[in-house]
Amino acid sequence: MTELAAQRTHVVVVGGGYAGTLAANHLRQRRDIDITMVNPRPVFVERIRLHQLVADTGVATADYATLLGDGVRLMVDTVGHIAIAGRRVLLASGAALDYDYLVVATGARHSYFGNPEWEAWAPGLKTLEDALEIRRRVLLAFERAEREPDPVARQRHLTFVIVGGGPTGVELAGALAEIRRFALKRDFRHIDPRDATVMLLEGGPRILPSYPPHLSQKAKETLRSLGVDVRTETLVTAIAAGEVNAAGWRIPTDTVIWAAGNQASPLVRSLGCPTDRAGRALVEPDCSIPGHRELFVIGDAAAFTHDPDAKLLPGTSPVAMQQGRYVGDMILADVADRTRRPFRYHDKGQLAVIGRGHAIADLKRVKLTGLVGWLVWIFIHIFYLIGFRNRAVVMLEWAWSYLTFQRGARLITGTWSPAQDQGLA
Amino acid sequence: MTELAAQRTHVVVVGGGYAGTLAANHLRQRRDIDITMVNPRPVFVERIRLHQLVADTGVATADYATLLGDGVRLMVDTVGHIAIAGRRVLLASGAALDYDYLVVATGARHSYFGNPEWEAWAPGLKTLEDALEIRRRVLLAFERAEREPDPVARQRHLTFVIVGGGPTGVELAGALAEIRRFALKRDFRHIDPRDATVMLLEGGPRILPSYPPHLSQKAKETLRSLGVDVRTETLVTAIAAGEVNAAGWRIPTDTVIWAAGNQASPLVRSLGCPTDRAGRALVEPDCSIPGHRELFVIGDAAAFTHDPDAKLLPGTSPVAMQQGRYVGDMILADVADRTRRPFRYHDKGQLAVIGRGHAIADLKRVKLTGLVGWLVWIFIHIFYLIGFRNRAVVMLEWAWSYLTFQRGARLITGTWSPAQDQGLA
Repeated sequence: MTELAAQRTHVVVVGGGYAGTLAANHLRQRRDIDITMVNPRPVFVERIRLHQLVADTGVATADYATLLGDGVRLMVDTVGHIAIAGRRVLLASGAALDYDYLVVATGARHSYFGNPEWEAWAPGLKTLEDALEIRRRVLLAFERAEREPDPVARQRHLTFVIVGGGPTGVELAGALAEIRRFALKRDFRHIDPRDATVMLLEGGPRILPSYPPHLSQKAKETLRSLGVDVRTETLVTAIAAGEVNAAGWRIPTDTVIWAAGNQASPLVRSLGCPTDRAGRALVEPDCSIPGHRELFVIGDAAAFTHDPDAKLLPGTSPVAMQQGRYVGDMILADVADRTRRPFRYHDKGQLAVIGRGHAIADLKRVKLTGLVGWLVWIFIHIFYLIGFRNRAVVMLEWAWSYLTFQRGARLITGTWSPAQDQGLA
Repeated sequence: MTELAAQRTHVVVVGGGYAGTLAANHLRQRRDIDITMVNPRPVFVERIRLHQLVADTGVATADYATLLGDGVRLMVDTVGHIAIAGRRVLLASGAALDYDYLVVATGARHSYFGNPEWEAWAPGLKTLEDALEIRRRVLLAFERAEREPDPVARQRHLTFVIVGGGPTGVELAGALAEIRRFALKRDFRHIDPRDATVMLLEGGPRILPSYPPHLSQKAKETLRSLGVDVRTETLVTAIAAGEVNAAGWRIPTDTVIWAAGNQASPLVRSLGCPTDRAGRALVEPDCSIPGHRELFVIGDAAAFTHDPDAKLLPGTSPVAMQQGRYVGDMILADVADRTRRPFRYHDKGQLAVIGRGHAIADLKRVKLTGLVGWLVWIFIHIFYLIGFRNRAVVMLEWAWSYLTFQRGARLITGTWSPAQDQGLA
């Protein structure tokens, strides 16, 4: 196989989230492999920490140049079309990339359960823009309340409703409770931000349904101690200007945040492979799509149904990261002419962070809550989850800003532009 | 005046609340004065502790025989008519009482601000029956929730709304939070009583509006720490079967408790004297009605507008008790042919009890909150507010049952009958 090994293999990775970044990272030190990553911006966004950005208690980004180094060519662009038969990706800018292997890791967007009109009132939290938009709305709501003479309108401004009690909703609720309790305490004269209402509405019987029941209970108690009104079995039936209707309640509010449903990126449907109801590619046991061993779909864009312990692997960062490393391995196996093994998910547990100093950790063997859970979360972040270059530099900065409450002021100035992105690097 | 002093003077006191009981108590050891007290039941109900009866954390009654002894003749009856010109009181039973002095201390009932139909959905807390009815509704709501398969209906059963953020509403909210947190914790299998929602709706900008603002704030924080959803500037606009509407919110609930407005007893209007909008007698500086020095109206039934520090004295137990003692004094002054002095209210402060171990005390010089406030409340109750016979026996029993959480089980068995009243004595 030596003559083949001398040939260079081109791997194109679409999407620089947990899955795509880990795939690129796994391959980047091989001299016989060229890697091109296509992502709309040059910074990696740590999605599972976006809620902290909303509360302005941490920086959730790092530039790919720092993370991945020179081994990966980054194209700040989006994909216009994938010509599967010709193994070519056409970018929005007009550029074309020919590939030997394509890794589609474009993630998911929110799904409004057949009510797309709700999106106008209830943005979700998936991207950095989402986090900044939510932060902007929340700050604006406090400012409007400060100037509002009508008490009913003032209360509506100060009511924040989060729809969906999964990890994103729970962490967002904790973040908003924190904004209310600490960050804003001294900034207003006419309102007391502690009077703001933060409601977390969950349609099912408990929040964090993927966790063991006693940890759901603990999370509920923690949120309540932070002043969050946690309402389970409260299915949203309508969202319109100024109000949410759920389980018979009408809640006047100007700020609704959606954390309830996911839909895979539309690019997945364009591949023409079988998908599930959420638009995720139904992948083979090796994460490729049927009939195309060279085309992998991983992370939230994929539905992996071959796990012996789960009907469907959850849309979490550990699954995404393990699949990223796995497809890197399988490409190396192909290059070395080894047989592919099927993907196996190693469930190391789950973590949810609720405000400063509280976390709910389900580490399979040990269940942790409170401060211990939170310290474990920091520890895992630094030494386990983010397992690549310069982790010490990046993570210690994050941990420091989190612990010291240092504000990421440069992040809250408005919408993103490429120039601003560069400034962050 | 010696021949006049030998004549016996007959004082009739209508109503055995704080005002009437203190008036009778003040006169009872005088051999030249006969006292008849008319009250629908033979037990004194400590109204400011009725909220504890709702939470079943204390006994709020004591029989008049123990409190006042033989010096007062008690007629368990109600007044049908007062013939002012003939100085005669006709009772519902048909008996007639001729008087030299009449003390009308019939208190107040709830006022629904022109929406009398709300009373069907939202009972108030003024009498022992009210307390037992509210307690019955709350316990029934938990039991219904336990058996309810529909989650939306279950939540409605478990939502308790208190309208009015004065002392009664605040103390009731604390009592319901306590029911939820402690008393019921182990009694249910299908529901967690801690999931119950307790909302306190206040139309004005702060709860306990008669207290200094920082104590209102402290009370709000204490209630929130007990898990009560305190909503100010939230005016109720409609109460109907299964819901309350307030400030744009629709709150599905089967249990609404009214603590928002007062209306003097209808007997006051029948006196034909000037009244204010709440139906209270506009009394003279000596608490008598114009043209009738022998007819006093005191306590919540009266509007006293001659105080140099207040436009109108509040409807509180200290005002009632001081007026009770005062009219006793003035009757003694008349008998001794001394000149009457005008009534002056001595404001010793205010106290509100929020759950077990929290109280808000505004004692003019010292403002107390938390455990200290609560201990002061107990102390004042035992040694100051209840300043009559057998106080040690009665109050230590109350304090003991409060501290030990002993249940007043005999009080929760149903509606009152005279036989049951006797059983309590």
